[in-house]
Amino acid sequence: PDEGAVAAVRARDAQLTKPAGSLGKLEDIAEWLAAWSGKDTPKVGRGLVAIFATSHGVVEEGVSAFPAAVNRQMVENFAAGGAAINQICRSFDIGLKVFDLAVDLPTPSIAREDAMDEPNCAATMAYGMEALAGGIDLICLGEMGIGNTTVAAAIFHALFGGEPEEWVGRGTGVDDEGLKRKAGAVRAAVARLGPERDPLEVLRRVGGREIAAMAGLIIAARLQRVPVIVDGFVTTAAAAVVHAMDPEGLDHCLFAHLSSEAAHGRALQHMGKTPLFDFGMRLGEGSGAALAAGIVKAAAATHSGMATFDTAGVSEKSGA
Amino acid sequence: PDEGAVAAVRARDAQLTKPAGSLGKLEDIAEWLAAWSGKDTPKVGRGLVAIFATSHGVVEEGVSAFPAAVNRQMVENFAAGGAAINQICRSFDIGLKVFDLAVDLPTPSIAREDAMDEPNCAATMAYGMEALAGGIDLICLGEMGIGNTTVAAAIFHALFGGEPEEWVGRGTGVDDEGLKRKAGAVRAAVARLGPERDPLEVLRRVGGREIAAMAGLIIAARLQRVPVIVDGFVTTAAAAVVHAMDPEGLDHCLFAHLSSEAAHGRALQHMGKTPLFDFGMRLGEGSGAALAAGIVKAAAATHSGMATFDTAGVSEKSGA
Repeated sequence: PDEGAVAAVRARDAQLTKPAGSLGKLEDIAEWLAAWSGKDTPKVGRGLVAIFATSHGVVEEGVSAFPAAVNRQMVENFAAGGAAINQICRSFDIGLKVFDLAVDLPTPSIAREDAMDEPNCAATMAYGMEALAGGIDLICLGEMGIGNTTVAAAIFHALFGGEPEEWVGRGTGVDDEGLKRKAGAVRAAVARLGPERDPLEVLRRVGGREIAAMAGLIIAARLQRVPVIVDGFVTTAAAAVVHAMDPEGLDHCLFAHLSSEAAHGRALQHMGKTPLFDFGMRLGEGSGAALAAGIVKAAAATHSGMATFDTAGVSEKSGA
Repeated sequence: PDEGAVAAVRARDAQLTKPAGSLGKLEDIAEWLAAWSGKDTPKVGRGLVAIFATSHGVVEEGVSAFPAAVNRQMVENFAAGGAAINQICRSFDIGLKVFDLAVDLPTPSIAREDAMDEPNCAATMAYGMEALAGGIDLICLGEMGIGNTTVAAAIFHALFGGEPEEWVGRGTGVDDEGLKRKAGAVRAAVARLGPERDPLEVLRRVGGREIAAMAGLIIAARLQRVPVIVDGFVTTAAAAVVHAMDPEGLDHCLFAHLSSEAAHGRALQHMGKTPLFDFGMRLGEGSGAALAAGIVKAAAATHSGMATFDTAGVSEKSGA
């Protein structure tokens, strides 16, 4: 973190025309932006939601309520401006880019085979870093991939332990039988791993391309001083891989919301992270992250746009 | 509520390109907007934060960390665009109007005298209704008045019982001695009331002008089909007066946030209301309500802007 920028934000905050601390988390967010962007006056000029779209062979195991064809259809829906994320981005003047990670070529079912070989996993992580091109100063993680709550559950089970049943949920709305198949697929996937749980090997063997791309993006954003907003259950699986490599590796990440996918809260607890809000959402597409970006933009605007007691001629607290 | 508009929203929601229920509270908000605006397709075109500013004689009792002169200074800060609320409104393209309720003429100290006489209280309630002029379709309650957390605490104590100490908090940052003086002022104010607690008499005798104006506005908004967003501790006191008259009288109101003023949560519990988020804020000015308005605008935009499964050519859930 840039301690100088944090100190500058704190000094200015104390002079703004409001009681000290009265903007609560908005003040924390302004500090966080300064710490990880290195800017004394935090500003969000070019926020971006990056949606990583791909397909998962694990859908063959009957783990999802929707068919895999939806992946390509939703990529087209994003392009046409018809998805939920398009409307949220428009509301908050945030950009949206969709990255097609071989949507028409599913990775093998993780219940039976590794999702990626090493060169493929590394290339996909590197590809994720490209979302930062073009002077982006705030990045929101988003994803689209029917079956990817199963993949995310496998990553959580591999990294955090417990039983498969504790990590699987309804996803887009699977029934009881489907939920059992999800747990079975997660159990089979993680059973293929040895007792050693190298985070990148977990990612490669029981993960998926969108999760690899997002893990790469989280790491690259840190180096390029771009604060990151993590969305829900699936994006948190990418964060968990980075966290397993370095527990401080997520300090530049804000966790937007608590997903209504039941195991999300458990995953956040394992990493000691607290989400900004809980709106009972479970859509993906970066929808929760984009809402949080609206709040982050307002937080930056209050910090950098407010008058000081001095310039506005407002009396300070008695005895101050 | 307009049941026809709610039915139209539900029917459309079921066709939007997302799993059913996956937008959580955003879906509830779209329904709420339809119910209380009477519009089949909820839209927020002209949102407004109305700040009611006034002065309170109870400040003489030593209940606040800031001097009463701040009221006039902050009204000028709002006009000059330097306050927190100006930045938040700009971020979300929401209008802002400040209503000066005789800022330079404090009401008498409620510890000793009634805040308003009957004609004055009625006229102030009527004045609050004027905030709806000009085709406003979403109204956020805001206030400015040094000493008004003491006044709000008196209203809560009068309406909900308990001890004065349970209803007072630090406000803008009062010290331990000031907190005792606050409790004393609240006790003295409510002791002047008889055992009967007519809500409008509580408002008139231990309230303040901004609270009367907001109570009038809440009632008028219902009749004019304008959904209302309630901010924090002080605006909730205005809502509590309306609630005491009719427990269903707040159904068109969304409670934005849980204030860090400790008794806010207790007041909401008494009315059975759940706030949208908790960002640890306690500024007033309508700041929490304006953040919520940003979320509400995004919720309306998702509902009315998204494509349907049919138009986008996206496959529905298996078996649907």
